Amino acid sequence: MPDATLRPAARTALVQGSAIRALLKVTQQPDIISLGGGMPAPAAFPIEAMRAAFDAELAENGPAAVQYSMTEGEEPLREWVAERETAKGVPTDPDQVQIVSGSQQALDLLAKAFVEPGAPILVEAPTYLGAIQAFSAFEPDYRIVATDDAGFTPDTIASGAVRGARLMYLMCNFQNPTARTLTEACRRGIADSARAEDFWLVEDDPYGDLWYRTPPPPSIRTWAPERTIRMASLSKILAPGLRVGYVVAPRPAVELLGRLKQATDLQTSTLVQRAAARVLRSGLLNAHLPRIREIYATQCAAMLDALADSMPAGVAWTRPEGGMFVWLTLPPHVDCAALLPRAVERGVVFAPGDGFYATNPARNTMRLSFATVPPAKIRTAVGILAELIEAAIRQPATA
Amino acid sequence: MPDATLRPAARTALVQGSAIRALLKVTQQPDIISLGGGMPAPAAFPIEAMRAAFDAELAENGPAAVQYSMTEGEEPLREWVAERETAKGVPTDPDQVQIVSGSQQALDLLAKAFVEPGAPILVEAPTYLGAIQAFSAFEPDYRIVATDDAGFTPDTIASGAVRGARLMYLMCNFQNPTARTLTEACRRGIADSARAEDFWLVEDDPYGDLWYRTPPPPSIRTWAPERTIRMASLSKILAPGLRVGYVVAPRPAVELLGRLKQATDLQTSTLVQRAAARVLRSGLLNAHLPRIREIYATQCAAMLDALADSMPAGVAWTRPEGGMFVWLTLPPHVDCAALLPRAVERGVVFAPGDGFYATNPARNTMRLSFATVPPAKIRTAVGILAELIEAAIRQPATA
Repeated sequence: MPDATLRPAARTALVQGSAIRALLKVTQQPDIISLGGGMPAPAAFPIEAMRAAFDAELAENGPAAVQYSMTEGEEPLREWVAERETAKGVPTDPDQVQIVSGSQQALDLLAKAFVEPGAPILVEAPTYLGAIQAFSAFEPDYRIVATDDAGFTPDTIASGAVRGARLMYLMCNFQNPTARTLTEACRRGIADSARAEDFWLVEDDPYGDLWYRTPPPPSIRTWAPERTIRMASLSKILAPGLRVGYVVAPRPAVELLGRLKQATDLQTSTLVQRAAARVLRSGLLNAHLPRIREIYATQCAAMLDALADSMPAGVAWTRPEGGMFVWLTLPPHVDCAALLPRAVERGVVFAPGDGFYATNPARNTMRLSFATVPPAKIRTAVGILAELIEAAIRQPATA
Repeated sequence: MPDATLRPAARTALVQGSAIRALLKVTQQPDIISLGGGMPAPAAFPIEAMRAAFDAELAENGPAAVQYSMTEGEEPLREWVAERETAKGVPTDPDQVQIVSGSQQALDLLAKAFVEPGAPILVEAPTYLGAIQAFSAFEPDYRIVATDDAGFTPDTIASGAVRGARLMYLMCNFQNPTARTLTEACRRGIADSARAEDFWLVEDDPYGDLWYRTPPPPSIRTWAPERTIRMASLSKILAPGLRVGYVVAPRPAVELLGRLKQATDLQTSTLVQRAAARVLRSGLLNAHLPRIREIYATQCAAMLDALADSMPAGVAWTRPEGGMFVWLTLPPHVDCAALLPRAVERGVVFAPGDGFYATNPARNTMRLSFATVPPAKIRTAVGILAELIEAAIRQPATA
């Protein structure tokens, strides 16, 4: 008997699979150099510390460590988050912390909580692809805000795009995909606008600890704690395969997100939360973060050098001060998605930029990640891309 | 500065927190006897096997075990699921399996995929509270189907409730909350109706392995594989704090659910999936399941004996042949939710039945779990409940 016909809800048509995630299988082949994924460097995973933590947790707390537990998350982990946020400058109580199964879940809960047809939400262009996926399931009215280092550009304010908005989603530190970091003045300006226009700020900060030389400015929560929902993750500072992240927000927002999380997956893995808390509370990050920063700083420098050496005129790119990505802008007639199959043929994967736009994609953009690739291979891969890009620039645009 | 005002999406008002989960903190106090939760017996967790599996996985596959991986789930775990389903009688390919972060996530993805305002979905009365929570976020038009051991009752068919339905959600084995199991004839009858009326079947089967004396009839998937989405979980056969479950369905449904999972949490923990696959593929369940069944059979018998010995006339209860629950029906004028605070005062927690109805709750019902409680304490707790119930029966209903 053939499969019965599916009658999916209308919203499902709005949720596109990630072209990048679809490439995961390709990128895991050993002969491929992948600049495409958002994976952290495996060399940066503290395997032995995690191994000891899982073992100790199961040995000492056996049944409780694998039993159901509170939806809000394990107390030791929430305390660690609260202490860390407090140390970073905004006094935070463990009650203001909701543990989630990675940042992507925070985005989903947030969308469930606040996004509905007709409610305008503000996003940057480009913005994080995973946020677009999560929000789109709930049929938002996307409004693009143009930000530069000084904050909202005069265009944005003049256009009235922020008026009536329910929230603004932004990544202040080493943004995915552009690696751009907002200045302190810009953060203050956005916080002022949020208060004046009464919208909430959703600060997604997976990369804030991955600075190379100097830490980024304080969290935007510093200037609007009463209306900021801040989310971060252990994916880039411990390991992404744990699937643990957290949300810090005013108590009413935490309560709402917790209620929705209960209906979504009851709770994040008890065992993983407890083992992660053991690793984090041991002080491992003090020695571990400098090591990760060094890996990414070195690989980023290798990529910037390779780009400078090989890219043809007409190609611009960002100069990251942290994070895992470089963002390239090509001449307007070059379609990066069309370049991808040719790059894969030559053994190189990158992320076309069009997926990072909620509306009106700029197809002449691409995101390159240097996070998992050693310098010599970065040079090889960038060289191959440069050849393909040069050829594409020379070709006239096709209709 | 006070917290800014939240403007939640309308759907959030439809998602109620679980009264039972809210009691988790109370039930974890050592002087409380909890018949309220749905927790499995901690004595049934194979701690040493899990400890060995996590350790081996991190030692042997370190970085890969904690890196991002495929949204569909880890291959060894999907293979185990496919082999198990095939052995149970419906040939299943690993491509028909989506790993999820516990059954609750399967319910959320399912709701996202198929539920929308105006699309009728069929549920039993009572039905699983977690399913109501997950579905309600997507504003369904609930239609109650009356089922008894013979399948749909003539009332249901006559009422036309099934006409135009998109799906029917049901737990065929040892249902939460009633413990009722559908006969084979009933399953066939429902599968026939589903095909005749062209709706899908969602079979939620967390308890199927927890039979006491004889296995339940085959999965309803046996008679409608082309339109059944079957979900199950490791929560009751290994441990719930892992948060691993799975969905088995025709390929188009698996693809849709996978795309939505990507937007929801990217993937279930790589490490937990791999460690679970190690435990399961070792054949542990062959010895482990009989042990769990024995625990639950013994505790269930203790509860049935205590109920028979102490409950006043006018109280009826189910006789489970598997699972973790007994369902009580009291005289119509007794409100079980109102009884709960008095029971807590006396050191006993139970789950009021009203939360298990999508519409028109029967407030004179309660669910008792014997899963985590030794027989002597079951007897004590049931005795206390019997006293309170007797008093409540004697009291006239208050307006």
